[in-house]
Amino acid sequence: MTENELIRIHYQVTCPPPGSIERLAKEIALEQTVEVSEECIPTAFIREEVVGQVLLIQPLPAAGSFEVHIGYSPDITAYQIPQFLNLFFGNISLKNNIRITEVKLPETFVGRFAGPNHGMEGVRRLLGVHGRPLAATALKPMGSSPAQLAALAEAFALGGGDIVKDDHGLADQPFCPFQERVARCQEAVLQANLRTGRRTLYFPNVVGGPEEMAEQIDFAVRQDVRGVLLSPFLVGPDVLRHLAEKYPLVFMTHPSFTGTYFHDRSHGIAPGVFLGTIFRLLGADISVFPNSGGRFAFTPRECQEIAGALRQPLGGLRAALPGPAGGMRLDSIPAMARQYGTEAVYIIGQALLLQTQNMQAATRAFMAKIREHFSETLSPPLPLEVDSTCDWMAEKETTPIRAHLAWQPDFSWEGRRAKGYKAETELAFQGMERVELAGKNGEKTDFDLRYFQLAPEGFSSLEKHQHAHVIITLRGQGILRLEGREIPLRPFDIAYVGSYQVHQLRNAAAEPFGFFCVVDHVRDKPQKP
Amino acid sequence: MTENELIRIHYQVTCPPPGSIERLAKEIALEQTVEVSEECIPTAFIREEVVGQVLLIQPLPAAGSFEVHIGYSPDITAYQIPQFLNLFFGNISLKNNIRITEVKLPETFVGRFAGPNHGMEGVRRLLGVHGRPLAATALKPMGSSPAQLAALAEAFALGGGDIVKDDHGLADQPFCPFQERVARCQEAVLQANLRTGRRTLYFPNVVGGPEEMAEQIDFAVRQDVRGVLLSPFLVGPDVLRHLAEKYPLVFMTHPSFTGTYFHDRSHGIAPGVFLGTIFRLLGADISVFPNSGGRFAFTPRECQEIAGALRQPLGGLRAALPGPAGGMRLDSIPAMARQYGTEAVYIIGQALLLQTQNMQAATRAFMAKIREHFSETLSPPLPLEVDSTCDWMAEKETTPIRAHLAWQPDFSWEGRRAKGYKAETELAFQGMERVELAGKNGEKTDFDLRYFQLAPEGFSSLEKHQHAHVIITLRGQGILRLEGREIPLRPFDIAYVGSYQVHQLRNAAAEPFGFFCVVDHVRDKPQKP
Repeated sequence: MTENELIRIHYQVTCPPPGSIERLAKEIALEQTVEVSEECIPTAFIREEVVGQVLLIQPLPAAGSFEVHIGYSPDITAYQIPQFLNLFFGNISLKNNIRITEVKLPETFVGRFAGPNHGMEGVRRLLGVHGRPLAATALKPMGSSPAQLAALAEAFALGGGDIVKDDHGLADQPFCPFQERVARCQEAVLQANLRTGRRTLYFPNVVGGPEEMAEQIDFAVRQDVRGVLLSPFLVGPDVLRHLAEKYPLVFMTHPSFTGTYFHDRSHGIAPGVFLGTIFRLLGADISVFPNSGGRFAFTPRECQEIAGALRQPLGGLRAALPGPAGGMRLDSIPAMARQYGTEAVYIIGQALLLQTQNMQAATRAFMAKIREHFSETLSPPLPLEVDSTCDWMAEKETTPIRAHLAWQPDFSWEGRRAKGYKAETELAFQGMERVELAGKNGEKTDFDLRYFQLAPEGFSSLEKHQHAHVIITLRGQGILRLEGREIPLRPFDIAYVGSYQVHQLRNAAAEPFGFFCVVDHVRDKPQKP
Repeated sequence: MTENELIRIHYQVTCPPPGSIERLAKEIALEQTVEVSEECIPTAFIREEVVGQVLLIQPLPAAGSFEVHIGYSPDITAYQIPQFLNLFFGNISLKNNIRITEVKLPETFVGRFAGPNHGMEGVRRLLGVHGRPLAATALKPMGSSPAQLAALAEAFALGGGDIVKDDHGLADQPFCPFQERVARCQEAVLQANLRTGRRTLYFPNVVGGPEEMAEQIDFAVRQDVRGVLLSPFLVGPDVLRHLAEKYPLVFMTHPSFTGTYFHDRSHGIAPGVFLGTIFRLLGADISVFPNSGGRFAFTPRECQEIAGALRQPLGGLRAALPGPAGGMRLDSIPAMARQYGTEAVYIIGQALLLQTQNMQAATRAFMAKIREHFSETLSPPLPLEVDSTCDWMAEKETTPIRAHLAWQPDFSWEGRRAKGYKAETELAFQGMERVELAGKNGEKTDFDLRYFQLAPEGFSSLEKHQHAHVIITLRGQGILRLEGREIPLRPFDIAYVGSYQVHQLRNAAAEPFGFFCVVDHVRDKPQKP
């Protein structure tokens, strides 16, 4: 393997006087891979291909301090984030005076990750805003009611701000339940958008276990939310990667719980590498970090390194936006303009809230201050995708869980009501009705079971999506159009529609065509083919 | 809320000379909750119930250093781990010179978590070993083949060791795939157990995204593995909590990537709080940490605090075992015996491997050294649960994915073979056959669809489990016994069996009783009621 194909990590190592830096560098290369000393390595393959290779050692100005470069085979990472982090700084985090200052990732590694879903340009297209930094705020303080937070969100939208996010401490607390907060804030922002003719985006904070977060995002997506705030080191870094791959949302990250990696300048990981390169690899479209000059401890140079790492080329990944925050005020804007320029999200929280009486005017002042330094140009915000037949979910079922649903000869089930869908010319489906049988009424399943019935001439929309379908035909005769094939379906036949396969169902006879459809409970929205 | 009902966090705060410690303490209480200054707090509720309450400030011996206690309403945590960590050390991790030295958790908070599945006593029952510490080793070095690692595992088991775990850097690397490694190592240990008549446990390392880890555990459980190694700060702390609730395994944790929380004694979290209290709350049965005197930097006192936090009362949670490791040798055992006594897992890795020629003899020497210091008593290892009808999974299906499975009049499906189960007197089910229709052949679904058929007089076993069932009756007549109720099932009826509901299905007529059963793809093993 050539040097270019290795993951190359730059360390700043402090070696106390009697020590040998060569020995210390070798110890790092061993500790991060085989975790044994050299005499315990049984084969040449392990010695040559698995143990890290010390590529460079050179003294730094500070006494006893050295720059060390070690190269590692990307195979060691198993091409996944948790084991990459282990290789990066797993065991040596428990040693002394080792700091990672830079990382070079080969294309064979970066190419396995999708990175930001939208990136700098995608977020701008969603908003239709160009030529100036984006303006954001945070909904707080914790303890405010959903209605109070919604009023702040509305005022920010009416004032012309771009992104209003939950404070990252807003969870699903008894005093401010997640669903009520998200529904109210999103509705307030959508209503304000109707009045302004522009688009402000609301990003709720999602936090919890993997299943809880999927439920939160699922709920938010049904409110037509387009992005979320997430703290990778509270919920798990790979949980971000996983959710970003599953949901085509904007992901804004918060650095909560990461501070000890930066606190000691002789040990840890440089903020640019951590909140820049790694967070972008995980899928951050916008990486929020504490700006210098605010309530926190980063230096201007560290902030500059974060912004640089988010925006510079990194394999084929989209560029991400830096989000300087943490005690910024309107009079911080000139300095932010010099430091970050156009391609950033400027986040001002408390300094707008101080004007609680008139958040809308405060937001206008925020936007005016930004326009003093930049030439804004606006375009129509990106049209959002249309609704689809696969997901008819505007209305939540409220029927209780039942152990037994008795079948009736008219192909209904006792205790479950069918929802009809009238044929409408503008929608690409017709003559379809649906009964939710399990999964949507509180049943603890990873899947939903539904019964669909197509009237003669009826058909579902032609579409594709990430999630798979399993179909069990119950009555009548139908045709499954699947990637160009036409598959006839008769009672009790089973069909499988794989990920992203273009599909459509239609009735092929003069009687109703009825089928069960089983899908993942948490699933993505259908797209036009 | 009284002081006893609060989450009480003890901080060691260094306050530079001109600063006011009262102001600094108040700033922490605000930053960790509302993230605004006092003048921005709009209501008395927020001021009194949401903002942290400074309960104590007292000077410490070091100049400018204070002990500060702040109490927080547990409601702020939303009773979940990620938001608890945010309250604990989220934003203040990004400030300077604040260290958490202790935490007191009220029963209203701890009671929401299950903690260790087995704990100290449960792990001993699984092994049947008492009166001495448990002896463990790690399979390494990374780069060894599955066969090489299995040979080491076998030798350790034949030598009489208790727990052999993967090194935490072993993932699903191309040079040592997870499934092959786990299958071989587990088989080697089970075979060795047959020879010794005792029980050594093999714990594979699980690492990856939430779905990948569930698949890894699913595979391991099918090999009859009883415990796993997991690094909470690589995979996400709440992922451990989630997996430990889902799978009744022994969870051994590794501290990879946590070192920066401890490195700077003026900032971070004391190891006893982090690797002791918090890891136990997450579900660690055994918390591995770098022992003093080895390759890492903990002091004897810090190690003592970890062991204490794992073993002392914590709500109703089971006591967990400390796992001192990281460069231990046979001659470390006398000091470990003094420091940790009986209730610990002593982990020696490389020092056994150095004897690669004779790992078995090295293990015998390890066990002999332990017995010099302790009086071992053995009991029969806890019998493991019997097989069940719900999970017949010994054999993996190998049929390819098919888009269409045409139904045949004999209630079979083209391309899918039924598996029969003969009536056997020792098993509590009879006359049952099964066809895997989707989910087990590589289909990308979060669920499996199966068809079961019970012959006249046939019945499934009476059992319960965490996962839910959805049943769709297809032919004949059956009875679902559910928590004492008897529900008659006729064609196309739907039934839902909720989490942990005791259930059994039986044929109620003279013709076959056939039904589809949909279950979560990743699911727990059934238990006897």
